[in-house]
Amino acid sequence: MNNTVKIGIVGYGNLGRGVELAVNRSSDMELVAVFTRREPSSIQASVPAYTIEDAAKFVDKIDVMVLCGGSATDLPEQGPLFARSFHTVDSFDRHAKIPEYFAAMDEVATAAGKISVISTGWDPGLFSLHRMLGEAILPEGNEYTFWGKGVSQGHSDAIRRVPGVKNGVQYTIPSEDAVQRVRDGENPDLTTREKHIRVCYVVKDVHADADKIESEIKTMPNYFADYDTTVYFITEEQLQAEHAAMPHGGTVLRSGTTGSGNKQIMEFGLQLGSNPEFTASVVAASARAAYKMAAAGQRGAKTIFDIPPAYLSSESPASLRKRLL
Amino acid sequence: MNNTVKIGIVGYGNLGRGVELAVNRSSDMELVAVFTRREPSSIQASVPAYTIEDAAKFVDKIDVMVLCGGSATDLPEQGPLFARSFHTVDSFDRHAKIPEYFAAMDEVATAAGKISVISTGWDPGLFSLHRMLGEAILPEGNEYTFWGKGVSQGHSDAIRRVPGVKNGVQYTIPSEDAVQRVRDGENPDLTTREKHIRVCYVVKDVHADADKIESEIKTMPNYFADYDTTVYFITEEQLQAEHAAMPHGGTVLRSGTTGSGNKQIMEFGLQLGSNPEFTASVVAASARAAYKMAAAGQRGAKTIFDIPPAYLSSESPASLRKRLL
Repeated sequence: MNNTVKIGIVGYGNLGRGVELAVNRSSDMELVAVFTRREPSSIQASVPAYTIEDAAKFVDKIDVMVLCGGSATDLPEQGPLFARSFHTVDSFDRHAKIPEYFAAMDEVATAAGKISVISTGWDPGLFSLHRMLGEAILPEGNEYTFWGKGVSQGHSDAIRRVPGVKNGVQYTIPSEDAVQRVRDGENPDLTTREKHIRVCYVVKDVHADADKIESEIKTMPNYFADYDTTVYFITEEQLQAEHAAMPHGGTVLRSGTTGSGNKQIMEFGLQLGSNPEFTASVVAASARAAYKMAAAGQRGAKTIFDIPPAYLSSESPASLRKRLL
Repeated sequence: MNNTVKIGIVGYGNLGRGVELAVNRSSDMELVAVFTRREPSSIQASVPAYTIEDAAKFVDKIDVMVLCGGSATDLPEQGPLFARSFHTVDSFDRHAKIPEYFAAMDEVATAAGKISVISTGWDPGLFSLHRMLGEAILPEGNEYTFWGKGVSQGHSDAIRRVPGVKNGVQYTIPSEDAVQRVRDGENPDLTTREKHIRVCYVVKDVHADADKIESEIKTMPNYFADYDTTVYFITEEQLQAEHAAMPHGGTVLRSGTTGSGNKQIMEFGLQLGSNPEFTASVVAASARAAYKMAAAGQRGAKTIFDIPPAYLSSESPASLRKRLL
């Protein structure tokens, strides 16, 4: 197993478990340990679990640390901490904070001679890549990103904060009509309301007023007020039985023109049965790429814009050219 | 204009004219000259035209030569010739010959300290990239490439070789049913006949036998015998009026699973109003990337698998991260 990339996982939630599954399926990577803020003995993983403080002892045993914590508080702290001693990969997803996070990670990783791939996954990640490819190839054109159908964690949380709501799930759904207009090359100007609809499944407290809850959700600023929102009241049993999966997906479209007005449309779409497992699959491939970038003498913070695509694959460049080019 | 990438075009057909349009629209690139095997004075381009022999005089005036000749005979000869003195980009598209062509270009370019981006465009090119990404991210799964609706030059040529045929155009059309089955996650085993249909528009000589032509086309080995083919007879005027455009496109799908069988589908699609202009747009972005790879100290033959995506863009990495990640 000398040539395998030794992987550690920091944070063992949905994303961490997805990375475990993806790494264990890759013959060129080997999962060594999981690091957690919980009591390690409570973790049921395929490898031993340790405290985050114990990670220092693994400097010679782990090549790439995959940071699976949240973007709000975990990554801003854990990212620079781990980048001092390991190559790292994370899926930091607070779009507005990316420049700041990149700068912090780049400083530490560069000084330590490490690679830190930040903000990988599908958005940020593959969707970002396609927004970039669309602009680079078709500079005259418009970009459209549609999300869904999928569960939005932030909007589901917002529903659950409404008084009288016991539980709830929110689906973001792209407007089929809007997507079709873009595919047809119309280059429409689309308002927020025209691009997506929101559908909520709500479990209310027995004595709560359904009309009042529905009205509070639909008029909630930022989250729902700018959208056509539908609210369904269901039972807790229905919620558990029918809304426990974590599907997501979406589409990035570039609608441009070349020459004397020839329409050219590029489209990248995802239909994901499990959002965290797919994100984890991109993250795992990025861990492989981080290791290869380091082996090629690079250092510092990197994003999907910087990764030579072949580095994401376990296969040799010659084999990729022969089979897939 | 000191920081612009100086571009030369070798071969001024549909692709060469498309590259001219794309380069002239890019503020960070500057078209310097066109080189042709025809009489240079016969070329109506936005820059002066010269003979291919004259290119040697432009070693200090051109950074990247975009080779727009054909893959059968032009590129195997011109590629290694130009790679001795210039960074080059081409769209060599004989899939089976790519390893051999790569080796030849890599040897010359490496020795000369140049970068040669080979086989770029959309297939080979962006489609290859998506076949590779699909495998790297979803190793358990199946890949499907559908081409069309679009004009196949090779098949149109084959029609025109049938005795009694005066002119003709062939469209490759993906089976909607087959595409939908893949999108639905069925992972079907699809025969050649099930994936695409072929539609031919034929202008026959006045006295030729239509039934005989139709039968000869439909039974032609390699080109049509394995497909459901429809033949329409039309007039030369109809052909010129309705079939002069060069649309194309297609779809690369990766249908995979993660974890305990969660279905995950990645899809990349193109709808191209002008096939040569879109190919040229990818080629032009690749010329920019070739220049940046060289500036970063790289040398040798490269493919789309090797290009850090940000190099395709004229924008700074910091701006790309802020706007698009």
